[in-house]
Amino acid sequence: MHSDHRAVSVVGLGSMGSALAAALLDGGHPTTVWNRSPHKARPLTDRGARLAATPEEAIAASPLVVACVRDHEALRAVLDPLTGSLAGKSLVNLTSGTPEQAQENLAWARSHGADFLDGAAMTTPPGVGNAEVMFLYSGSRAVFDTHRPALTALGDPLYLGADAGTASLHDAALLGLMWSAMTGWLHGTALVGAEKTPATAFTPLAVRWLSTVSGFLTTYASQVDAGHYPGDDATVDVQIAAVDHLIHAAAARGVDNGLPELLKATMERARTAGHGSDSYASVIEVLRNPTAGR
Amino acid sequence: MHSDHRAVSVVGLGSMGSALAAALLDGGHPTTVWNRSPHKARPLTDRGARLAATPEEAIAASPLVVACVRDHEALRAVLDPLTGSLAGKSLVNLTSGTPEQAQENLAWARSHGADFLDGAAMTTPPGVGNAEVMFLYSGSRAVFDTHRPALTALGDPLYLGADAGTASLHDAALLGLMWSAMTGWLHGTALVGAEKTPATAFTPLAVRWLSTVSGFLTTYASQVDAGHYPGDDATVDVQIAAVDHLIHAAAARGVDNGLPELLKATMERARTAGHGSDSYASVIEVLRNPTAGR
Repeated sequence: MHSDHRAVSVVGLGSMGSALAAALLDGGHPTTVWNRSPHKARPLTDRGARLAATPEEAIAASPLVVACVRDHEALRAVLDPLTGSLAGKSLVNLTSGTPEQAQENLAWARSHGADFLDGAAMTTPPGVGNAEVMFLYSGSRAVFDTHRPALTALGDPLYLGADAGTASLHDAALLGLMWSAMTGWLHGTALVGAEKTPATAFTPLAVRWLSTVSGFLTTYASQVDAGHYPGDDATVDVQIAAVDHLIHAAAARGVDNGLPELLKATMERARTAGHGSDSYASVIEVLRNPTAGR
Repeated sequence: MHSDHRAVSVVGLGSMGSALAAALLDGGHPTTVWNRSPHKARPLTDRGARLAATPEEAIAASPLVVACVRDHEALRAVLDPLTGSLAGKSLVNLTSGTPEQAQENLAWARSHGADFLDGAAMTTPPGVGNAEVMFLYSGSRAVFDTHRPALTALGDPLYLGADAGTASLHDAALLGLMWSAMTGWLHGTALVGAEKTPATAFTPLAVRWLSTVSGFLTTYASQVDAGHYPGDDATVDVQIAAVDHLIHAAAARGVDNGLPELLKATMERARTAGHGSDSYASVIEVLRNPTAGR
């Protein structure tokens, strides 16, 4: 077997686990799968995956075990009985969880002679296997380096550091950005939709605008690291004046204003804390200090 | 004079008005400027702009007048005394305002024999003149078509329709998306920053992720127009489970949770309204109906 196509076992065949196994098969990796309900393995065994009858059998089949189950409790329920089979294995966990759970999993795996890498797939299942999609990893650098070809079959693997909790923390931070952006987009879509603009007409503008906004984020990132927020492009005071236009326009059209009201209140806290003439990046000061500006 | 380089007058030389005049000069347009405080014109007259002594003189100098002042009240204070000078002129307004103010401005301009186009610059002043930057316009199609070369000197001009309020409504919708995305990014930056990740390390991931999220928006736009939200990639229920990881991680690190708590409450309203197994796009149903899911 070519060393770039090492065997991989996938434990958990929900929609994400199934997508991971399919991408590994597409990448030419001998793939063994296990799921509590074995019927979910059928589309994968039809494509050449081997079905393990038990989790032990799945772990025995490959040097790399990728786990993706419902949650941390489900992960421990599957793995805890298998401590005798783990020595020498590389375990990659793509189950969603907290940084603390990832750290606990790493300590647990190492105590049983296995090595551990925690990960987060920055995609929905249909995006798995796309080389543009980020997969964030943290924990064992050795697992990341040894199994990089298999991880590359899933997406673009990025190693964030030895602390196993780092990938999960970044995942949470990026999901927060996603929910914020998606809800802001839905609010805007509802607003222009009230005047009969279809979502499919508004969204190309929104997508172009997010690319412009990404430029602002890049400018503001340096300001955040410097702790200095020159308001030479647009100030918090200017944004506060503009947010009222949004709130009035949405209220006049019966659109919920919870999100813009919260954004305005957050900007006003920044102004109260002395950042009215600073850039929007200064809002991080009140996010870091929940009592500031109140 | 080449017809692509018609004369333009710019009324209002704040940071945005000055950037507009500079871009017109860069584009080869004979440019006349006026500002209440004439010293702000100096950098522009040094580059060849002509300084008008009065707003009347500015309006007389060019077939196209671009106005960009502090707000709607300032705009009317400048223009209301000039009704006798407006006949035959094209007026483009880039002052921020509401859709209703834009509609009022169009009716007022037409009653004095001028034509009117309302606009919104989707950039901060440093981005003016960049051909990638969107400028949204609505109102007179004739003004848009006749003065397209001058508008193209400012950025990429997009005509949204004859209702003068449309550009302003889209501006408000897109700014809401911007504040949502910027605040979500700052929250995430504060979260990973609590574990010593610099903003300049997190932000390239955030920018890549926004490009992935833009793909979700494009998928969801068709769902919104169809009023049908198949949860085949990720459901509202799955997002609600994940948002708790963010809230716990932020609380443990002393980061303000106002934004993720609001996002969670909004998702829970969607679930209560029957969208737990639908995609995130279904959240628009509760934004359109502020009492739904409560």
